[in-house]
Amino acid sequence: MLPLGFRFSGVHCGIKKNPHKEDFTLIHCPTGAVAAGVYTQNLVFAAPVALDRQRTPSQDIRVVAVNSGNANACTGERGLKDAYEMARLAASAVGADEKQALVMSTGIIGVFLPMDKIAAGAKAAAEKLGDSQDSILAAAKGITTTDKSHKVASREIQIGGKTIRIASFCKGAGMIGPNMATMLAVIATDAALTPADAQTVLKAAADESFNCISVEGHMSTNDTMLLLASGAASASPLSGDDLKAFQAALTATSIELCKQIPDDGEGASHLICITIEGCKTRAAARQIAQSVANSALVKTAVSGADPNWGRIVSATGYAGVPFDPNGVDLRLNGYLLYERGAPVPFDARTVSQSIKAKRETELILTFREGSESIRFWTSDLNADYVRFNADYST
Amino acid sequence: MLPLGFRFSGVHCGIKKNPHKEDFTLIHCPTGAVAAGVYTQNLVFAAPVALDRQRTPSQDIRVVAVNSGNANACTGERGLKDAYEMARLAASAVGADEKQALVMSTGIIGVFLPMDKIAAGAKAAAEKLGDSQDSILAAAKGITTTDKSHKVASREIQIGGKTIRIASFCKGAGMIGPNMATMLAVIATDAALTPADAQTVLKAAADESFNCISVEGHMSTNDTMLLLASGAASASPLSGDDLKAFQAALTATSIELCKQIPDDGEGASHLICITIEGCKTRAAARQIAQSVANSALVKTAVSGADPNWGRIVSATGYAGVPFDPNGVDLRLNGYLLYERGAPVPFDARTVSQSIKAKRETELILTFREGSESIRFWTSDLNADYVRFNADYST
Repeated sequence: MLPLGFRFSGVHCGIKKNPHKEDFTLIHCPTGAVAAGVYTQNLVFAAPVALDRQRTPSQDIRVVAVNSGNANACTGERGLKDAYEMARLAASAVGADEKQALVMSTGIIGVFLPMDKIAAGAKAAAEKLGDSQDSILAAAKGITTTDKSHKVASREIQIGGKTIRIASFCKGAGMIGPNMATMLAVIATDAALTPADAQTVLKAAADESFNCISVEGHMSTNDTMLLLASGAASASPLSGDDLKAFQAALTATSIELCKQIPDDGEGASHLICITIEGCKTRAAARQIAQSVANSALVKTAVSGADPNWGRIVSATGYAGVPFDPNGVDLRLNGYLLYERGAPVPFDARTVSQSIKAKRETELILTFREGSESIRFWTSDLNADYVRFNADYST
Repeated sequence: MLPLGFRFSGVHCGIKKNPHKEDFTLIHCPTGAVAAGVYTQNLVFAAPVALDRQRTPSQDIRVVAVNSGNANACTGERGLKDAYEMARLAASAVGADEKQALVMSTGIIGVFLPMDKIAAGAKAAAEKLGDSQDSILAAAKGITTTDKSHKVASREIQIGGKTIRIASFCKGAGMIGPNMATMLAVIATDAALTPADAQTVLKAAADESFNCISVEGHMSTNDTMLLLASGAASASPLSGDDLKAFQAALTATSIELCKQIPDDGEGASHLICITIEGCKTRAAARQIAQSVANSALVKTAVSGADPNWGRIVSATGYAGVPFDPNGVDLRLNGYLLYERGAPVPFDARTVSQSIKAKRETELILTFREGSESIRFWTSDLNADYVRFNADYST
């Protein structure tokens, strides 16, 4: 069952050329939702990000409108006005105040939003709002661009004798022009949260999920992750152990959701899961993980089923984090390839077969510096990715 | 003419399988050269780097031995002993003290040096030492691995009424397993320098050349750049304006040399020259340049002749350097695509044609933060690169 207090819809309003593809999504919370957001750190950020940043955290958001096919990025003053107008149109379509709306956009950059289509979309989507699985699937499809499929994750948990529901969807795939592989995610829950707690739990969940994935290290102008809490399942805001239980469920849902992005990496044949453990700080672990995840050499080695430990170990060495090179171990799919800074004899054919046999490749790098760790996901890199990205023409 | 006081040779000693490929190089300075080095910043560095770091700057280096086909990296204590033994063998072959030798290695990592072949190579190379163009060409070939061709640069300048000669060669191409695209460079000159000045001018030259190139941002375990100054062309060490003139010539030679590496990038169809100007500091300009140079999206856009300014502007925004996004201009091959943070109408077909028509693509990003700038070179990225790196199998 979907979280109580929400209605969803996705329609085609004409931004995408294919009339069978949804390109406009509404999430409606008639009684008002507490809302929090985390956003791209790119200095060059899109108009909808500017609007949402200003309005979150919030005590009372009634509607979120999302369009795909146009990112409303690098569109200056007019783009900002268009974002505010899109919020107003969505609010008006559901009978809310214009300040109770948030917006997200993804698609081509540097092109103004077609406001007539946005207006028609808001009306059409408002008429189709529903709380069925079909409704949320249409909403999930309405935010996709080059995604091979829509991406959803949900769960139900018992907290303090009450059932709390979380439903979420996101979009994002390989980094492809012109949409820059924007990541958008919406998480709806019927838990009750204060705006401050909503912001805290969302940030913590993002730090273990959407901030731990990378397709090729390019951060988009539009990345946005929103949490909407209707409060319909509990009388008063969660606190103490209840809030902790909710945090755990939110984080788990976010991880399940975010992994679908590198898994859908443009032409990706493997999802690479990188665990960095034994670091002094989590920030150090993240920095090493990113260095490995963004190495084209590591990614091509996995796509070629080549257990090339040299590439992996070398990528840790230039991450900018100090460590003892003689204290490093590397395991690939469970096979020990490198121990305390020296190669270990192994059967390359067996390890290569283990890469070929599975969609997911697991790298575990163990350091002897401390006790902090991180899990990070990326996709491999093969010729299809490059062909796709090179062949796109503005 | 080659710099006075040096002899060069390159031979096949059996590390590479192809008997027609040189894999062992000697540079001999019978009267002793002042030597300086700059090395990889990777924490995981190879044995020859450890040896050279210890011995430079030096007042009296007689011989440099280089092998290709084996990097002597990730080889632990035994690797370090092998590096010292290689130095001893080279010194012995030319009648020098073992401490008067430096070594470099490039090739497969995690495999011990075949010391019998190294010993044979040192002997054979010592017998072939000469000061002809053929000799230095053989030496330049002896350090290559996957390079499509050898890479050399030289010049002659007048300083204080005397002729000073600089001759140099290097290796490095796309990042390909298992040799990790190590960059090695040797610059020989007959100028007289103090060891301290040699170190200073080499570091300054590296900062504008070998530290300004990137194929995919992966820093090797073996990167080494050596400067050898025989002093044969001038009685006393250069100083004042003479030293400045030498610095300018050394930097220009280094730039001419280093650009050949991204130009030889695995399957590269374009050399991309990125100029970042108007920054507060040169370090800030470098950080932005690296972010653009390492973006797979920017590189695939160039290989697809796609003037995708969004990818380029976006890559500046996540470089981690603060700047005013409304103060950014972008020019591609002279065409203004983006001005003061907003797109400029342009004919995409014309700009695309300009990319297709030339081997070199020029990006100029202008900021309005200060007056520091940098020039940076990278290669584009196409499907051949990925195929090559994925298909290699250990």
